[in-house]
Amino acid sequence: MNALIKKETSQRFAKLQQIIIQSQADACLISTSVNQFYLLDFIFDGYIFIQPEGEPLLFVKRPSGMEGENVIYIRKPEQIPDYLRQRNISLPRKLMMENDVLPFSTALRLQAALEMPQLQNVSGEMRRIRSVKSEYELNQMRECAKIHARVYEQIPRIYRKGMTDIEFQIELEREMRLAGSTGIFRAFGENMDIFMGSILAGDNAQVASPFDFALGGQGASPLLPIGANGTTLAAGTTVMVDMAGNYRPWMSDISRTFAIESVPEMAYKAHQVSIDICNIISETAKAGTPCADVYFLAEKRVKEAGLEAYFMGTEQQAKFVGHGVGLEINEPPVLAPRSKEILQPGMAIAVEPKFVLPGIGAAGIENTYVVTDNGLEKITVCEEGLTIL
Amino acid sequence: MNALIKKETSQRFAKLQQIIIQSQADACLISTSVNQFYLLDFIFDGYIFIQPEGEPLLFVKRPSGMEGENVIYIRKPEQIPDYLRQRNISLPRKLMMENDVLPFSTALRLQAALEMPQLQNVSGEMRRIRSVKSEYELNQMRECAKIHARVYEQIPRIYRKGMTDIEFQIELEREMRLAGSTGIFRAFGENMDIFMGSILAGDNAQVASPFDFALGGQGASPLLPIGANGTTLAAGTTVMVDMAGNYRPWMSDISRTFAIESVPEMAYKAHQVSIDICNIISETAKAGTPCADVYFLAEKRVKEAGLEAYFMGTEQQAKFVGHGVGLEINEPPVLAPRSKEILQPGMAIAVEPKFVLPGIGAAGIENTYVVTDNGLEKITVCEEGLTIL
Repeated sequence: MNALIKKETSQRFAKLQQIIIQSQADACLISTSVNQFYLLDFIFDGYIFIQPEGEPLLFVKRPSGMEGENVIYIRKPEQIPDYLRQRNISLPRKLMMENDVLPFSTALRLQAALEMPQLQNVSGEMRRIRSVKSEYELNQMRECAKIHARVYEQIPRIYRKGMTDIEFQIELEREMRLAGSTGIFRAFGENMDIFMGSILAGDNAQVASPFDFALGGQGASPLLPIGANGTTLAAGTTVMVDMAGNYRPWMSDISRTFAIESVPEMAYKAHQVSIDICNIISETAKAGTPCADVYFLAEKRVKEAGLEAYFMGTEQQAKFVGHGVGLEINEPPVLAPRSKEILQPGMAIAVEPKFVLPGIGAAGIENTYVVTDNGLEKITVCEEGLTIL
Repeated sequence: MNALIKKETSQRFAKLQQIIIQSQADACLISTSVNQFYLLDFIFDGYIFIQPEGEPLLFVKRPSGMEGENVIYIRKPEQIPDYLRQRNISLPRKLMMENDVLPFSTALRLQAALEMPQLQNVSGEMRRIRSVKSEYELNQMRECAKIHARVYEQIPRIYRKGMTDIEFQIELEREMRLAGSTGIFRAFGENMDIFMGSILAGDNAQVASPFDFALGGQGASPLLPIGANGTTLAAGTTVMVDMAGNYRPWMSDISRTFAIESVPEMAYKAHQVSIDICNIISETAKAGTPCADVYFLAEKRVKEAGLEAYFMGTEQQAKFVGHGVGLEINEPPVLAPRSKEILQPGMAIAVEPKFVLPGIGAAGIENTYVVTDNGLEKITVCEEGLTIL
């Protein structure tokens, strides 16, 4: 591990240890991939045991071959107490765990294995810590965004007349993978299934989905009802591209919209309002701005344009205009009217004011910004206008 | 919904209601995608409320627009009790929930919302019900397997000299998607992250992974340490292809191995032992065979061949030779030495005796079989020999 990464992970551990101290907990157990990676720069099957002070212990089930003074191989969590006693560590009476992600059975088993400590949820705090990025992390996002933008620039070349949305998506997926996309990307929450992103063509953009993304779509399988559904990219309609920016562990988020040949003026109007909203937000918001106010800036412009009925969907309208981005595609803060969060320097946010126009399709853009004391830095730089295919 | 699907889902509900009665529970709440799909043939964001008798209630958060006498829109689970009372349904005192999948916070919130019933885990029972497939479900798997096999037949055409494993995988992913693959496939458990399947070339097949699949691989990202890692497909090594068969909601599982030009005799030997094991198992096992015995059949042949050190990995060896397949890629039963399960008619199992040969790579095959009273029916029919690329 190089010195820079070592410094990064030390700082991240220090933030978590601060939370443990503030919560008056005795220890914290981290076992989910994203948080393990955040704290260690690698993942394993097992548990990171963190106390308010000192180095963490790694209780490892897999992979084989891990080395280090703090690595302890176990077959099952019931072995943890003996190993703690061997190191003269008291069993925690109050233990922080990732309760928003750990399955109920798993959490109860861990609690019993550790002789019934009181449990406290660390999931929200970990997400809050991760939401403020270091310069190293932001640089990963900037690099990711550059590749993301370069892939989007290939779109006009990929398009062939008469393609379906799925055929179009498949060629784009290939470009993404050739550019280093890891394929999967991680999202927080129980209703966030998706495959590599979303392509919405024509009226499929109106279809409500069970998943908690900005827009829906019918999808190609009843087991994955979101996104492209086989709609032909037809003249007079739009296609919105919102494919993953997973070229680094820290991600970027970009949406762009394309017109198939000639589309009604309404599409241009709505698309321009989306660009306007991004510009208004990027000129107004900065560290210290309440996230609810960011939403209200968007809402005001939408109302001025008389486009409320089409904003963030038609039948089912998402009640947010953006969200944090990082190791997961949906991190804090959420840019929503009820949000109590305040923008902080080092946060990275995706702003995605989108419209769905019946008979035409989706319109609008999404950019990713870094929050600074002076404003927002746009890291997703590529053509924003409604491009004709 | 057509009559066939309606009959299918009725039968599935009846099986679950039998479990509720046997468990002396008052109701069951189902909210995870795979089980929702199994019971309804569609998924939504919300809860299926099932009592020992009668039709289920659907408490729906999303999508908008669902209709039916049994559909009740809610914003949050705390609204459920009032709606139950309106329908003269007592709150359950003993409630079955998917405790192996529901996050701890979610389960506790649901328990509190329903005024603190005793909770019982239905995850295992649902998996047990799903493990025995109807003829309709088996036909989906047979159709899926045919497409899966056809895609694998494209592999020699896809290969180009000097490709890396990732480049090879990308072209195969594209063929899969063009053939109707849904992209994602669902796996049960907390350590089952993967993207579309696994390509293992040369010594990357030896690398231990944190995930619970038959073999590992370093992967292309530290956030997804499994599978292809950029290894060039080099003469004298093998490449094993174990990509998802997700062309229907019910899936198939196939692995095949390819030799890059000329490989040592050892690779042919180990590969043939894998084929032998599949043949021995398919000629010996049938409904009534203990799953542990299936493993022992494999183990016996491995020992005869003196290949124990290479079976199911080298440094880290998986302790199973196969698993059930269905809506999830890893369903019961598991074909492992400690398994207490017995093969039942209608089960579908993937048998994957694999070897990892240092300096060469992985060898072996995987087929999917349907269990009948008379034996095993192989549904994954395509060339099994070590094919030279």
